[in-house]
Parts: sequence; structure tokens; C-alpha cells
Amino acid sequence: MLRALIIGASGYAGAELANYLSHHPEIEIAGLVVSENSADKNKLLSNNDLYPQLKGKVDLPLIGSSDYSTLGHNIDIVFLATDHAVSHDIAPYFLQKGCVVLDLSGAYRVNQAEFYTSYYHFTHQQLYWLSQAVYGLAEWNAEKIKQAQLIAVPGCYPTAAQLALKPLLTEKLLNTNYWPVINAISGVSGAGRKANLKNSFCEISLQAYGLFSHRHQPEIAAHLGQDIIFTPHLASFKRGIYETITCQVNQGITRDDILTVFNNYYAHKPLVRVYSEGYPALKSVIGLPYCDIGFELDQQHLILIAVEDNLLKGAAAQAVQCMNIRFGFNETLSLL
Amino acid sequence: MLRALIIGASGYAGAELANYLSHHPEIEIAGLVVSENSADKNKLLSNNDLYPQLKGKVDLPLIGSSDYSTLGHNIDIVFLATDHAVSHDIAPYFLQKGCVVLDLSGAYRVNQAEFYTSYYHFTHQQLYWLSQAVYGLAEWNAEKIKQAQLIAVPGCYPTAAQLALKPLLTEKLLNTNYWPVINAISGVSGAGRKANLKNSFCEISLQAYGLFSHRHQPEIAAHLGQDIIFTPHLASFKRGIYETITCQVNQGITRDDILTVFNNYYAHKPLVRVYSEGYPALKSVIGLPYCDIGFELDQQHLILIAVEDNLLKGAAAQAVQCMNIRFGFNETLSLL
Amino acid sequence: MLRALIIGASGYAGAELANYLSHHPEIEIAGLVVSENSADKNKLLSNNDLYPQLKGKVDLPLIGSSDYSTLGHNIDIVFLATDHAVSHDIAPYFLQKGCVVLDLSGAYRVNQAEFYTSYYHFTHQQLYWLSQAVYGLAEWNAEKIKQAQLIAVPGCYPTAAQLALKPLLTEKLLNTNYWPVINAISGVSGAGRKANLKNSFCEISLQAYGLFSHRHQPEIAAHLGQDIIFTPHLASFKRGIYETITCQVNQGITRDDILTVFNNYYAHKPLVRVYSEGYPALKSVIGLPYCDIGFELDQQHLILIAVEDNLLKGAAAQAVQCMNIRFGFNETLSLL
Amino acid sequence: MLRALIIGASGYAGAELANYLSHHPEIEIAGLVVSENSADKNKLLSNNDLYPQLKGKVDLPLIGSSDYSTLGHNIDIVFLATDHAVSHDIAPYFLQKGCVVLDLSGAYRVNQAEFYTSYYHFTHQQLYWLSQAVYGLAEWNAEKIKQAQLIAVPGCYPTAAQLALKPLLTEKLLNTNYWPVINAISGVSGAGRKANLKNSFCEISLQAYGLFSHRHQPEIAAHLGQDIIFTPHLASFKRGIYETITCQVNQGITRDDILTVFNNYYAHKPLVRVYSEGYPALKSVIGLPYCDIGFELDQQHLILIAVEDNLLKGAAAQAVQCMNIRFGFNETLSLL
Repeated sequence: MLRALIIGASGYAGAELANYLSHHPEIEIAGLVVSENSADKNKLLSNNDLYPQLKGKVDLPLIGSSDYSTLGHNIDIVFLATDHAVSHDIAPYFLQKGCVVLDLSGAYRVNQAEFYTSYYHFTHQQLYWLSQAVYGLAEWNAEKIKQAQLIAVPGCYPTAAQLALKPLLTEKLLNTNYWPVINAISGVSGAGRKANLKNSFCEISLQAYGLFSHRHQPEIAAHLGQDIIFTPHLASFKRGIYETITCQVNQGITRDDILTVFNNYYAHKPLVRVYSEGYPALKSVIGLPYCDIGFELDQQHLILIAVEDNLLKGAAAQAVQCMNIRFGFNETLSLL
Repeated sequence: MLRALIIGASGYAGAELANYLSHHPEIEIAGLVVSENSADKNKLLSNNDLYPQLKGKVDLPLIGSSDYSTLGHNIDIVFLATDHAVSHDIAPYFLQKGCVVLDLSGAYRVNQAEFYTSYYHFTHQQLYWLSQAVYGLAEWNAEKIKQAQLIAVPGCYPTAAQLALKPLLTEKLLNTNYWPVINAISGVSGAGRKANLKNSFCEISLQAYGLFSHRHQPEIAAHLGQDIIFTPHLASFKRGIYETITCQVNQGITRDDILTVFNNYYAHKPLVRVYSEGYPALKSVIGLPYCDIGFELDQQHLILIAVEDNLLKGAAAQAVQCMNIRFGFNETLSLL
Repeated sequence: MLRALIIGASGYAGAELANYLSHHPEIEIAGLVVSENSADKNKLLSNNDLYPQLKGKVDLPLIGSSDYSTLGHNIDIVFLATDHAVSHDIAPYFLQKGCVVLDLSGAYRVNQAEFYTSYYHFTHQQLYWLSQAVYGLAEWNAEKIKQAQLIAVPGCYPTAAQLALKPLLTEKLLNTNYWPVINAISGVSGAGRKANLKNSFCEISLQAYGLFSHRHQPEIAAHLGQDIIFTPHLASFKRGIYETITCQVNQGITRDDILTVFNNYYAHKPLVRVYSEGYPALKSVIGLPYCDIGFELDQQHLILIAVEDNLLKGAAAQAVQCMNIRFGFNETLSLL
Repeated sequence: MLRALIIGASGYAGAELANYLSHHPEIEIAGLVVSENSADKNKLLSNNDLYPQLKGKVDLPLIGSSDYSTLGHNIDIVFLATDHAVSHDIAPYFLQKGCVVLDLSGAYRVNQAEFYTSYYHFTHQQLYWLSQAVYGLAEWNAEKIKQAQLIAVPGCYPTAAQLALKPLLTEKLLNTNYWPVINAISGVSGAGRKANLKNSFCEISLQAYGLFSHRHQPEIAAHLGQDIIFTPHLASFKRGIYETITCQVNQGITRDDILTVFNNYYAHKPLVRVYSEGYPALKSVIGLPYCDIGFELDQQHLILIAVEDNLLKGAAAQAVQCMNIRFGFNETLSLL
């Protein structure tokens, strides 16, 4: 049994991680950690005002983070379900102890220091670890993930967008002069678990935000090697990501060409489901670890539909998937 | 034209008040006031992150509350859409200037100082004004409202419960040994407009709260002169109150008796709609100033259904209705 | 007083029409008509299982449509809130009697017979009336509407898309080689009021539909004179349309240029609200007759956000607006 | 491996059954059956317009029901997720073949023929099997379930109500002269998967229905041996049951007495979770096979809160639980 620590365990992704790991046959949860001054400290994760759905399943206490040094003994794996500033600071501590670290924040996702200066507005201090980090897009980077000590798990928007576009770009089916137009709609859990008037039930309404300025735009563009237009929206549902991607194919490309490429890449990938006809609805993936992809072609224009549960394939499930790959377990262990 | 001030104008009830008054033919809005340290200070009420639906309708600025003394000139009417501690403190200032004050909080709703010690946990300091306050249950207290300088407008739960039960209790149709069981379900706006994890979109779920301990239980009981059981619930909708009230009728009471009593009391009350058959749904009243009442009788047991928009008949609309009654305008002016 | 008939009055748009007309000072409702075999025949529009929110406001009976000839006397205006096949067939009857007809269906929206063959799959039989029909995009066709006997009111998707794009295309700010990418999200009421498993509460989930094949694509393209990509989605809300439109501006066009053009066209149009900064949310327009427009520019790419209530500016409110224009009333009479 | 047939597999409970059985280690799905004239015949259960969430998990075809005789060979277990008229008619066919039948309808839930005459308005024709049927309230009838050939699985409302009240009635803690007031709120899936205007997304709104006349009232009363008042409501959520039950305790009963009784009955029952403090929210159980119970006592009055997922503990999960008990498997096999 490997011992895993989850830091940021009271957040939405952290709780999903705890749920998966609680029934993972190869993993023992070494501790669920929250920040020292969290109101959730010392509560059970399954407390009434936290995750009552986990009663009887994950009745573990939330430990204040000052206890790292104690917890740090005999830890094999650390999941950081923390924001990028925290991940940036604490990842090296665990890495130096030899732990494998799976970071769900943006702190190590792009191996260029200047990326952080431009889009995250801080100076990255961990250039060695930034250079070592492997991007945890599980279906695409398995070989590197197997060797990695620090895995930067991509988040919700980038995972769906890249899984849909990467096979077509790799196989040169797309007109790269046409920037794919990614219209993405996220559930509210994407904003995290915190008191914020913007996330209040009465305030939430379908709305675009961060036009031309969301951090995931350069992340997606950097990893695809393709300029894109990325327009995120927030909508009145708890979880899920729905992306409608409009792009242009090269002359002569047919529907069959596209389906063939998708099948070549994903037929044996258990967590990507390609629709040979029709396209997924949001409900297709809620509570499930899949990314579902459908498409429609009309002469030159191609519309891709990519959906996932933002907390699962867009966060916790992909992190566990990366861990499974890293340690040689079945890729979907505890996920399906 | 009378000049009216709205204090607490950036809250949900305050904004509804501003909307009604903005097209009231006899009223001029003298100012929309928020607390001095509100993040909304100096914004327009119709600002993108406040009430964009009011663009072009109520494009008035929110003024910081330190400006009372300036605003206090030539004010005829003050609406207090503030919490009870604030209302308690500032109502006397405006009353002493001769303004008519309509308080939407609980600060002056029960004319007994000990009520506040027991249920609000503070010592009421304004005993003179407390003794002068008239309870603004508009359909029942019109004569007193016409004379009042301080009108304590009842809130959402008590308005629906009392409008449903009061005719039957007054006409002695109910077995008073059987405490009416009031199961009430409120939309989230009842909790006010503030950053609170409990009101976060992802946290909200149908749930009872405050069992046997909600402040509205003694308020309803005191005004009805009848013990009750009151069980509030919060549910995943923005606005509205749905109350299902189970009670017992006296021997021999028929369905017709009940309908006759309701019609005697409400046939000429424009904001109470009695259903002669069937019962209202929540959608019957959302965005409307009505309280709708339906019922079903089975031998001894009677079930009453009372619904309203918590922000309208349960707050802003009833406050405007009281103002209309107080100044001799048509009761529904600007409401219908 | 002019006498108006509403045919299809039990549908969602029909009920909104009835609501507007019920308090229109220049209009008397001559009758609310439903199809002869409708389950709603002879009920009041405000019946419990129809529109209880209209109790006391529109307590009029729904008349079976075989009564046309009786109802046809002394009718000045007919609203057709019927599907296109019905509108196609019955419009001429009323037109020949001299009524002004406002058709909310697609039957007369494009003055080309072949349009109907291609996209509606039937042969249009009313070529004379088709040639006479005026497209009721109220902000753009007021002069023609004033003269029209048959006004084809555009529906939800086309109204928002055209109001956003038309000023920019007219003023040649857009690169017309780049087909605007219109991602549109509609509430469920857009599908009409009928028993259909697809509209069942449990089945609805955010989902694209009709990719490259929705009838509104050629309608929008025809009226704009511009190829477009139109991708409609259905989402879990009752009413509203949210359109995110990605397009390309010509070299050198600035944010100010765009704002200036919008203001030139719409500053004096009461039902279009242009956002000088930020962009609308869906809640900005629900229950209101406006179309709200915001935008963001990033070098060459421009994103337009256009929202409206699909049943109001996208149906009933625009129909009443057209009627007001046609008869010389204030454009917003009974709407604001 | 036992071979199980699911009849009515395209309904909401049927699909949940298929999902559970698909990963049950002791069960092989022998067939998923729908009615002969169902539009879903020959589709995969995981079809886009059925249950796309099951893609890759339950890709089995739906078979038209005329194929019973073929399917009937080598069948050990039959789940009837059909309405009561169908269950009434077809259960004997499978029983005579020696299958164990788990019926999720009301057809065999009360062992009195006259119950069906009064509340279901038909004459029960299967008196022998009615007399043999065991009521599948799993936590209470395990000994009988182990011997049963026909198990009548209770539905959503009765399961939650009985699990909450039965321990207290059995231990004589309640004043039986006071009829428990059961206010129950159901998600829309309780109405089944069919085209019905009443279930349309735009029509659904929080609303009581069936006051004093719902069939579950006599079912609950018969099995509890206690008169009750049962008031069901429909609300705008997909799944779940929330019951707020007001009752009266006998003189001298304390909070500890109640908790002790609940713990005595349920501490070792894995699918009932008793809250020693606080009370469950609807989200506590959605997607999970539990019934959660909380309570609050105020002198004489006691409020019980009982929640469950109507499709799981209120249907499919309880049916599988009964099957597990019947065949000596672990009670929660494939459920947790």
C-alpha cells in the first residue's frame, strides 16, 4: 500500500480525490489536510456542513496544515488541491522528501517562467521543479508521466479542449490559420468552495466572463502549439464543462477522416468516449471520469463538442489516472 | 409628490422597493442608501454586478449612509430594508424628524420588549417607538396603518402563514388545541445578498433548518394568538415561499364554510387570491405581489397552501402596499 | 380601441401576448383562440394548469378555433402565435378581411418561396402574401412596418443575432470573409408548450443540437446578407437566449469605433441596451422586453454578447412593439 | 452466476437496476426488456437519447417484450420496473416458471384484495400471489425476504416514511392519537420517464398534489398500523425525496431515548444512516443507496427528517438489496 496525502481536502476537487482514494486498493490515505486557519479544521470530511454524502465512506478528520512535518513521514504521494500560490510554495517541500506530487493547480503547468510573469502576475521561484514538471494530460503524456516526480494535472477547460483538438492538429486535419473558437460553459464548482457573492445562488446566471483574458487561453495555446479564441461562461449548474469548438478543416477532409483519427487515438483509451454519431450532453458525464467527444462537419467548418465533469476528468479523476499510470496500476483503478 | 428614501437599497428587497417606487406616480425617490463601507457605494443600482435588469429603469447611485443628515431634508417616507440591529438604531432618527418609517426588519414587529430579549438576544432600547409601531399585515391592519408613523412590515414566512390562518382562527373554525403544522420552503434570496458559503450555488440543497428555533415561530404565534409548529426549509430556487399548513377544524366544519370565510375576508382584497378549487404552485406568484391561498379538507384535517414571492408580498410589495394605505393612495398603486 | 385576436393563446408566447395586451390602453382583446381539439379549450387562460400567475389579470376563456368566423367580425389585429404550417394557412383569411396580421411563426419571414422548399420542406402557397410580408425586426424596419398589413415577427435566435451584427455589417466594420460564429443557448420554453419527452424536466441537459442544420441559420444569413455559423444549444433554464458571437473586424477598427456605431443605431431605441463596458448576463433580461448587447475586442477578433428573453423581445414583446409602430402608438406602450 | 431479467429497463428505475447489475459479481444480465411498442426498442440502453452516461458500461440492447418466452429460459430473477397494471399481469408468468420476482410497482405491496379496489380502482386477479408476496422493506423484513419468491419492493415515499417511523412506533415512543404529518417532496423522476406536459421543464414548479388522496397514504398506514396525514409535493429537481414528519412523543420521552432506539435498529444496517446531530440535506443521498434520518425534539413534538434518492433506496437500490438478502449475498453487494 502506498500512502497518499491530500492537501486542500475540503475543496470540491479535494473531496473527490478523497472519495476515489478511499476505495483504491493500492492506496492508503495518510491524511486530509486543510489550511491552518480553515473553518473546516478538525471536522470530519463527511461532516453535515461539508460532504454528508461521504458519511460512512470517508469519515476522516481534516488536519491543519502546520502538521506537515508529522504527516510528511512515510508519504509516497501528495495531491495538491490547492491554489497555484500555495502549490508553488509547498510542492518543493514534498518533492525534496522524495514524494511524487500531483498538483491540480496551474503552478507547474507550463515550463516557461515568463508564462507566470505574464499570466499569473508573479515571478516563479521554483525553476528547477518547473523544468521537471510533466503535464498530466493522461491520454497524451503517459510515457513521461511514468517517469515523473512532479505531475501538473491540467484543469477543466484545457483538458476538454486539448483532448478534442490534439488528434486533429497532430494529424494535420485542421487549417491552422483559422483559430479554433472555443466556447466553454462551466458549472459553478469550477470557481471553488468559498464564500463569494459572485457564487451565491441568487447571483449566478448564464454569463460569459474573462473574454480574451482567461489564463487557460495561453495554457491551451502553448500546449497545442496553436492560437485559439477561448470564451469561458459560467452557468447555473453545479458541475460539468461543455465546450463547443468551431474550427476549419483542410481541403478534402471528410467526416470519416475525422472519426478515424479520433478512433486511432482514443479507441483504447478508457476515459475518452468518442461519439460516432450525435454528440454528448452535459448529463452524459456528470459524476463520471470520462471526457466525451462528438462532432459535425459541414464542408469546411467543423464543430467539436467536448464535455466532462470539471471535478473529475477536469481535476480529481485525471489526477488519480495520472497516479495510476505513474505507479503502473490499471489506468482506471478506483475510477470506474 | 412625496419624497422617499430607501436604506439598504442594494439588498434584494431594497432593489425591489426601488423598482416599485421608480414608477410610482406619487413618489419621488430621494435617495438609495447603503452602508458607508459597502462595496456597492457609489455604483448605480443598475450596475452590471448589481441589478443589470434595472438598466434604463433605475439608474440611480447608491449613497453611503453617512450622508443621512443631508438626505434627511424634505424626506417624507423612509423604507428600512436593513437588518434588525440597524433598523432598531436608525428608525428613531427619522421618526423624530417626522418621517413615516416602513421597517422591513424584525426590530419593531412585536410590541413586547421581552420578545427581543428572548428571541433576538438583545435589549430593545426604543420602547416608546416599539409601543407605537403598527404591524403592517396590510389586509388585516389597514385602519391602524392609516394612522401609523412607524409600520413594521412582516416578512415572508409570517405573512403567508397569517394570511392563511387568521380568517379561520378569527371565525373559530379551527380546533385550537391542535397546533397548526407549518411546513415552509423558502428560496435562497430569503437569506439576503451577502457572501456566505451556505448560500453558494454548489452548497444549496433542499434542507430543513432552525427546527423549533426560528424567530418567526414566536412572531407568528404572538400575532395569531395560537401556538404553532413552524419548520422552515431552504430549497434550490431563487425566490418564493411555499407553505403547507396542516390543521384541524372543529366538528362539522365543511369545505364550503372555509371557502365562505376566505371569500368574506379576501374577495375584495386585491393582493390575496383564494383558490376555490385546486391550490397554487410556486410559479403562480413569482415576480407578483400576491399571496395565493388554496386548501383541501378531509373530515377533521385541513391542509392550507399559501404561497407568495418572498421579496414582494413577503417584503417590498407589502411595504409599498402599506405606504399606499397610509397615504390614502390606491392600495395596489405601482404594484399591479 | 382596436380589437385584437390572439391565435395560439395557450402557448408560451401567446400567453405573454395576452398579458401585454390585457393592460394595453389602446387595445381590447377580442378573443383568445386555441385549436379546436386542444385540451385547453374552454378553460380560462389563468386556469391552475395553464397560467395561474395571470389570475385576476387575464381571466379570459380559450375559444376553439372553429369560431373564427364569429370572432372575425370587427377584428383589427390578429396575432398568430401558431406554428408555421398553421400560420401559412390561416393568415390569408384574416388579411383578406383587412386585419393587420402579426405572425410569430416562420411562415412569412423570408420573401423567397424556395427558402421554404429548402428549409421548411413544403411548397409555399401564399406567394402574394409572402411578397407583401414585412420582416418585423422592429429597430431596423420601422418605416416598412408602418405600412405593412402582414408583419413576420422574427423569433428568438434571429432577433438577438441580427441586432448585434447588423450595425457592424452595415457600417462595414467586419471582415465579411470571416463567418461570424454564433453560439446560442436557449431556454426550454423555446421548444414550445407540448408534451414531449425531450422537454421533460429529467431529460433536459445542456446540449448542442441541429448543428449546421437549424432553420434559423439561413434566415439570419438571408437577412444579414452574410454567411454565418450558427450553433444552437438547449440548457436547463426556462426562458432566455444567450448568444456569444465571434467575428473579425477590419484592420484598424477600435473599441471606440464599435461603441460609436452601436450608440448611433441604438441610443434612441428603447428596447436595445448597449453596454459601454462589461457584458450582460442572462438575468439582465428575463421577464423584460430588452435585447442587451455587450462586446470585447482583441486586436482582430471581436466577441459580441447578445441576450434577450426568448418569449419577449424574441417573440411577444417584439410583436407588440411592431403593432405599436404600425398603429402609431408609443413603441413601448404596455411593454415597459 | 444467476441470470436476471429487467422488464421496463428504459425507465429511470430500470436503468439504475441495469447499472447496478452490470457490475454485480454474482449476476449476469439476461436481458433488458421494454414494451413491444416502445420507441426505445432495439436501441442500446446507452443510446444518446436514453442513458449516454452508461456508454461503455451498459451497452446492451432493449428487447421488445414479445420475446418473453425466449428470454424466459434459464432466468433466475426478474425485476419488474413496470407500472402496477403490467406487473399485476406478468408477475405470475415468471413466478410459475420458478423465477424470483422483484416487483417495483404497487401491484403486490398490500396483502388485501380490497386495498386495490379502493385505491387502485381495479379488481386484483392474483390473489394467491398477492397472499404470498413479501413486502421488501429490507431493513425490517429480511427474514421473510430470504424465503420469498415474490418481493414487492416499496417505493420512494413509503420507504423513507416507514424507516423513520417504524422504530419509534414499534418501541411505543409515539402518541398514536396524533397522526404523523408527513410532508414529502419528490423530484420529477418520481413521475417516470414519459412525454407528459406536466413533467415538462417549463411547467414544473414546487407544488403540492394529491392532498388526502395519494395511494401511498393507505400503503404507509397499512404497513405501519398507524393513521397518518401524507402530503406529497413535486419540486424542481431531478431526483430525491425529502420528508419532514411531525409527530408527538409520549410523556417523558427524551432526545436520547429516540437516538437510542434508532441506533438499536439501524446501527448495523449499512443503508440507513442516523444523524446523532443535525439533519440531512437532499444532497446527502443523491446518487447513493442510503436513507438518511435526522430529528429534533421540542417537549412533546418531534420532527423527523428522512431523505433518500427516490430511484435508489426508493426503488432500484432497495430492489437489489432485497435480491442480495434473498440469495444470501452481502446486503450491499454492487450498491456501495
